[in-house]
Amino acid sequence: MATTRLAVTLGDPAGIGPEVVEKACAVLLAEDPSVSIVLVGSAGLAEGVAERLGVRVTAESQAPFVGPLGRPTAESGRAALQALMHAIGLAKRHAVDALVTAPLSKEALALAGSADRGHTEILARELGVGPTAMAFFSERLYVALTSTHEPLRTAVAEVSTARVVEVAVLLHRALANFLGKASPRLALAALNPHAGEAGLLGDEEQRLLAPAIPQARALGVDLSGPHSADTVFYRAFEREFDGVVALYHDQALIPVKLVAFGQAVNVTLGLAVPRTSPDHGTAFDRAGKGLARADGMLAALRTACTLVGLRR
Amino acid sequence: MATTRLAVTLGDPAGIGPEVVEKACAVLLAEDPSVSIVLVGSAGLAEGVAERLGVRVTAESQAPFVGPLGRPTAESGRAALQALMHAIGLAKRHAVDALVTAPLSKEALALAGSADRGHTEILARELGVGPTAMAFFSERLYVALTSTHEPLRTAVAEVSTARVVEVAVLLHRALANFLGKASPRLALAALNPHAGEAGLLGDEEQRLLAPAIPQARALGVDLSGPHSADTVFYRAFEREFDGVVALYHDQALIPVKLVAFGQAVNVTLGLAVPRTSPDHGTAFDRAGKGLARADGMLAALRTACTLVGLRR
Repeated sequence: MATTRLAVTLGDPAGIGPEVVEKACAVLLAEDPSVSIVLVGSAGLAEGVAERLGVRVTAESQAPFVGPLGRPTAESGRAALQALMHAIGLAKRHAVDALVTAPLSKEALALAGSADRGHTEILARELGVGPTAMAFFSERLYVALTSTHEPLRTAVAEVSTARVVEVAVLLHRALANFLGKASPRLALAALNPHAGEAGLLGDEEQRLLAPAIPQARALGVDLSGPHSADTVFYRAFEREFDGVVALYHDQALIPVKLVAFGQAVNVTLGLAVPRTSPDHGTAFDRAGKGLARADGMLAALRTACTLVGLRR
Repeated sequence: MATTRLAVTLGDPAGIGPEVVEKACAVLLAEDPSVSIVLVGSAGLAEGVAERLGVRVTAESQAPFVGPLGRPTAESGRAALQALMHAIGLAKRHAVDALVTAPLSKEALALAGSADRGHTEILARELGVGPTAMAFFSERLYVALTSTHEPLRTAVAEVSTARVVEVAVLLHRALANFLGKASPRLALAALNPHAGEAGLLGDEEQRLLAPAIPQARALGVDLSGPHSADTVFYRAFEREFDGVVALYHDQALIPVKLVAFGQAVNVTLGLAVPRTSPDHGTAFDRAGKGLARADGMLAALRTACTLVGLRR
């Protein structure tokens, strides 16, 4: 049996990351004897978690984190960033098969002096092998986004035909693999109400989105639309589509979190290795209380293992 | 027992409006003996439906509609508009207690030469008694919008503190009445991802949305936020909030249609009389087949009756 080697970061140490990693890894290790884990985080913290999890878990740590818990600081942002960069290094030298990341805080990243807005942007730069995209996998809703973390105004201004086609191709490949379907049925969500209602409520559908459909189809991608965003996710949930290409953060995340709260997995498409994370944040207000639910992190770990298996 | 007099329009006669009105009114009349209905639509069509529904239903009709079924035309748009204006006239002279409207097509309205984008805009102008807002009521999700049918780009550009406060007041009054709660807990949805993440992902939260909170509270409205849009609807669905103030069409309609598809009721806040409609459209592709589901129209009729009762 092939071993699956995961690098798991503890995320922002002031949030619930270390707690959910420990809880979820305990379940994963019990259910899947082929998994080994490299925990990456602050000195002391990472080793402590690794020791409690047992012999199949090792720790690789950076500078210690001295607190405080429960709010974003330059220190917590720096710790999260160091752990991520270390994990990326493990992936680059093939020491692990996949990355699973606990949440970091964009605000803490900024306090630490980073201009990056999140995991997806850093991973795209460090491990991208071409175009990348942020996607969310849940039991009945698979969504990839053409944008990541931009102001809504910017995401609207940057909608482009080429990017829609690019993301449709990435989602097509990912779902063909993950769902085992030769030709997953993809739907493009519209930008404007009622998909622009024939141009009366905005022209991006006619000008930028409609042209993406034949271009994607010419590449062998079964993409349709643009469909009204207010029904396309329901239709996908009802299995009329296998996946949706969405245009901005909340267009994807409102439906994903509503139907799969705490169970959706953030998957970065287009990286050299599979990378997953839970769909929740650092939850600073719940840090250090021992009450955080680890379902999302467990789903992220399991999805990473599945993605590693499918690559083989 | 007080009679509830409803004006019910047949909507665009080329769509499923006439069919769902007939099916839903039959159920309502059977379950509520205090209801009488004035059906408003094209000559021949309105009388036929009224006759089949029995003695508590009368018809008031305009020019006949000669087809075709199944697609928006200038004729179908004109018929829908005439019916709506006639129903508005009935409300203005207190001949009815509430309006319930079947779907019309914005595209057909435009073909008929109307510059209006939909019911909400026309009703606001004709029957508004101050500020108005489009809202959606469903069993576990009550949402009012600061915009109606604009391109997303326009809705983003027009976000304003004053409008948020105005809509929060309207939703507060509506839910205090409808839910019988002195102080409904309202949540303001953010515009940008992660509610702008402390300004890193957009400044509208700090500049325009946060100032609305104390202003609304000074008016006795229990408004909180701005909350990340990708979790606020889930939190409302889980009853942490009684209602949500949303900023653009799909922000409200994606979650509403996902959790209450076909059952959510469109309610216009701020009119001289209650007005409701189903949350679906004309469904031209299903017109004339006798297969359309009337649940949404029935929910709209029932909600109108409830709103009339609460006014007394």
